[in-house]
Amino acid sequence: MGVDALAIPSGDGATKADVIAFAHRLADFAAPLARHYFRTELPVEAKADASPVTAADRAIESLLRAEIRSVYPDHGILGEEEGGDFERPLTWVIDPIDGTKSFITGMPLFGTLIALVSEGRPIVGVIDMPALGERWCGTGDAAWFGALPARTSDRHLHEARLFATSPDIFVGADAEAFARLSGAVGLRRFGGDCYAYGLLASGHCDLVVEAGLQVYDVMALVPVVEGAGGVMTDWDGRPLTPAFDGRVVAAANAGLHAEALRRLRA
Amino acid sequence: MGVDALAIPSGDGATKADVIAFAHRLADFAAPLARHYFRTELPVEAKADASPVTAADRAIESLLRAEIRSVYPDHGILGEEEGGDFERPLTWVIDPIDGTKSFITGMPLFGTLIALVSEGRPIVGVIDMPALGERWCGTGDAAWFGALPARTSDRHLHEARLFATSPDIFVGADAEAFARLSGAVGLRRFGGDCYAYGLLASGHCDLVVEAGLQVYDVMALVPVVEGAGGVMTDWDGRPLTPAFDGRVVAAANAGLHAEALRRLRA
Repeated sequence: MGVDALAIPSGDGATKADVIAFAHRLADFAAPLARHYFRTELPVEAKADASPVTAADRAIESLLRAEIRSVYPDHGILGEEEGGDFERPLTWVIDPIDGTKSFITGMPLFGTLIALVSEGRPIVGVIDMPALGERWCGTGDAAWFGALPARTSDRHLHEARLFATSPDIFVGADAEAFARLSGAVGLRRFGGDCYAYGLLASGHCDLVVEAGLQVYDVMALVPVVEGAGGVMTDWDGRPLTPAFDGRVVAAANAGLHAEALRRLRA
Repeated sequence: MGVDALAIPSGDGATKADVIAFAHRLADFAAPLARHYFRTELPVEAKADASPVTAADRAIESLLRAEIRSVYPDHGILGEEEGGDFERPLTWVIDPIDGTKSFITGMPLFGTLIALVSEGRPIVGVIDMPALGERWCGTGDAAWFGALPARTSDRHLHEARLFATSPDIFVGADAEAFARLSGAVGLRRFGGDCYAYGLLASGHCDLVVEAGLQVYDVMALVPVVEGAGGVMTDWDGRPLTPAFDGRVVAAANAGLHAEALRRLRA
């Protein structure tokens, strides 16, 4: 897989190849559980931020937390359901079901997101689609779709395929900025969640622009998008750290990224 | 499958069971071709109405037309790419790739739609999802998801899951009406195309409201939605005939349908 076995600063002797294999193993554990709950009658609760949560989210995060604690007891864990922080040198960031609205409406576009963050920088990311049997993995300098290398497109803005999960995520000036960008692209689609970033990594779409995201929504995406040749930042072009402001631009190439930022600002 | 073998008014001795089996056969022919073209580099042309079309759309429609002409030479054919009319007593209506924007962006949510229309009324419909390996079939009085019966939900408006392909399909007063309805439901999602109607037939979502549709977009959906227990009409509650005005409401049950129409009008 072209992964160098350099030691990462975990202090426990784990290599980058070790943690990549472990991230895959976490996704392997999560997927059957996600499929088990998918399209069953689950009570849906609204969390404090009004996003829906089900027993599936909680069961998957709990399983992954136990596995991480067992194998890497010194690593930190931050998950959508149980919280956490970045106080340890290495932290696993988990979104057990990204796209819960897809999940509860029978849409197979939900994913499990797993990232390893070192000193505020995501160094491994997995986007796993349990109902589709598709998976992207990335390390910032390489990315794979299943066992094959993933590579972004070289499309320009006027032909670009732009995704966002929903128009409802943009408010006020953000909505105007998104409309400005939409007017300049070749095609705009809603409804992607994390899957859109995987499609971008594989060259099928070219831009994903969103707002209102949380840290567990984005950390896994960055090493995949950038490992495949893309660029992923906030709307001001800054790297995505845990302190980001919820707004992201993922672009298939540097030229497209610059063009998209210009339209969002202008 | 509970299908009665009553003669249908085709004059050629075909029974309803015959044409259901034939509709499945058409979908079986189309699916490998759709999968063959999916996620390959295809030149995308814009049609007169600005909707994208590729070689995949044309190849699939051409294949299905040849098969229909060979087995039912007296039946009419109307397809998205080559046109047609309803001058024969029985007409096959084909949308080779519904959701071409999904298709060209690597999203597996595109479908092949096949309907048989008798005297302006769709009596058999198939929604086939080639990349997902999922299929709905309906006859207005029964519907199936694969080999299993499909059944809509009994949800009310305040808990309903509403789908539409994109906010961009609603203009002027239609956009206001859709916003009014959106404000009354439990959850709203964009990005379904024909798949949303299948999810509705299986009880995973409860309302699909759209505008700007063509006859080949909707004829296959009606026997599936209604066969599963739902109600599907235009925004004024009229049955969907080839002369419909492009606006449709599919609802999981009669109560929800009435509530949705009220919100669209009010």
